[in-house]
Amino acid sequence: MKITALAGGVGGAKLAHGLSQILPPDQFTIIVNTGDDFEHLGLYISPDLDTVCYTLAGLANPLTGWGRKDESWHAFNEMEKLAGQTWFRLGDRDLGTHLVRTERRKHGEKLSTITQNFCRAWGIEHTILPMTDDPVYTMVATKEMGELAFQEYFVHQRCEPSVTGFRFDGIEKALPAPGVLEAIDQADALVFCPSNPWVSIDPILAVAGVRSACATKPVVAVSPIIGGDVVKGPAAKMYRELGIQPSAYAVAKHYENLLQGFVVDTVDAELQASIEAMNISTLVTNTIMEDELGRLRLAKDVIDFVNSLIK
Amino acid sequence: MKITALAGGVGGAKLAHGLSQILPPDQFTIIVNTGDDFEHLGLYISPDLDTVCYTLAGLANPLTGWGRKDESWHAFNEMEKLAGQTWFRLGDRDLGTHLVRTERRKHGEKLSTITQNFCRAWGIEHTILPMTDDPVYTMVATKEMGELAFQEYFVHQRCEPSVTGFRFDGIEKALPAPGVLEAIDQADALVFCPSNPWVSIDPILAVAGVRSACATKPVVAVSPIIGGDVVKGPAAKMYRELGIQPSAYAVAKHYENLLQGFVVDTVDAELQASIEAMNISTLVTNTIMEDELGRLRLAKDVIDFVNSLIK
Repeated sequence: MKITALAGGVGGAKLAHGLSQILPPDQFTIIVNTGDDFEHLGLYISPDLDTVCYTLAGLANPLTGWGRKDESWHAFNEMEKLAGQTWFRLGDRDLGTHLVRTERRKHGEKLSTITQNFCRAWGIEHTILPMTDDPVYTMVATKEMGELAFQEYFVHQRCEPSVTGFRFDGIEKALPAPGVLEAIDQADALVFCPSNPWVSIDPILAVAGVRSACATKPVVAVSPIIGGDVVKGPAAKMYRELGIQPSAYAVAKHYENLLQGFVVDTVDAELQASIEAMNISTLVTNTIMEDELGRLRLAKDVIDFVNSLIK
Repeated sequence: MKITALAGGVGGAKLAHGLSQILPPDQFTIIVNTGDDFEHLGLYISPDLDTVCYTLAGLANPLTGWGRKDESWHAFNEMEKLAGQTWFRLGDRDLGTHLVRTERRKHGEKLSTITQNFCRAWGIEHTILPMTDDPVYTMVATKEMGELAFQEYFVHQRCEPSVTGFRFDGIEKALPAPGVLEAIDQADALVFCPSNPWVSIDPILAVAGVRSACATKPVVAVSPIIGGDVVKGPAAKMYRELGIQPSAYAVAKHYENLLQGFVVDTVDAELQASIEAMNISTLVTNTIMEDELGRLRLAKDVIDFVNSLIK
């Protein structure tokens, strides 16, 4: 069985890691959101790609979920002393990644090529694809501050402004990166990782041809919302600010027409009936990935669930 | 007595440091070559300015003379793993400097303003001025590889190509940075540090108005060439390749019309007569600065010599 996953940052990276521990490289591919990418201090930074790569390589910081484990902050501390911009934390090892990627992009190389080379250097055997090689910038419309670039909203403003909507700047000109449509077409099923539907999965689906390719395949999504809240990130807050009660049901509704299966946490068992009323098979299981065993357990549950759906 | 020094990299920084230990901030100013500056990996790097600043701040690596002491190389090691460009070594703390400077320059701030702020952050009380806020790039004409940007010649090619000449790209549009001409005009004497005449002092002199301002003041130069060779760097090799026998005499001849005094090492005592024949008073002393005491000793000798000349 071949699975292709769509993923954003930390939560998505965790499930993708679990799946990569079970499925060999020729049976599992990951397509990653790049709407969070931004240029900062002259560096081209791809937060979600890095989180997925670092996580699969075993290089991720287990406490934060983003950045590198055993990281040092000498450059960053110097920047603080010199009153530089320090709202986006950059570790020394992480800086090495950004510096090489920035230089290669400046020489015209594609993000997908660079990512492939980085994965090889980091010992990652699975294919990790950016959704596109073209610039797409997730913009967050807010009540208090107007439209903000994603990292400005997410990191600099700590998700505090009230969200009124989203826009993926550049999306109309963005083509799927080489391998993206193939990975979807060749998959027996797709998994939408427990990532933010608005700003992690929606940008991927908005790339030309991706949503319609997904519509031809069995799709199973894992709810990032558990008991009405999130493990990490602003998804629940966004739902509330957009006038929707945050719940696993709201997530299923979000993806409604694409879904054949949906995975909710045991605390949301009561929602099973209403989700299944949308003609979406629902698996109720423990979706909390507290450690690597948790990732493996959920990955196994998802694979079994996918198998039961496509048989 | 007020002294203004012209300085390049390591040797210049050492004497400037010695002078700064004796002369208070209102009596000593340093003008630094920026012809070595370059953009690398998207970073704006000012090697000579950084060497002078780090040295005066007590932050310089005592073994290399450039870069930071107690430096770590995590970003750089990561870049090596990712097959990035690593011919120019960038330490983690040093990267912090470059990142903040690059960002501020991108926002239109002047190198002289940024340098002033950095000096304050590093606890440097003396004024350190870049020769210009405008882009000047020292270009090295070589027999084997044509014209090379300075760091390409100096670091990447390890000074191996044979030099046939120099050009300071952009010099005709470069204005002295704020404070440069004032520091020369207000000085009782100028000191040309033991820096490379061709690529450290000449670029400063080539900035509009600097050479003619220097010509109105007593100038004392310290020979970077000792016993026909250099402590560090390609100056002697350059003289040879340009068909001139490298010697303290050749350095005095280089600056000839500007000099009132010249400082040579004791090993070059035999050259005193021929240098004085050019009507240049010559001090013979120990010019090797092996440690901080050596810097202080030479600085004191230079100050005494200057005093004897201007009385």
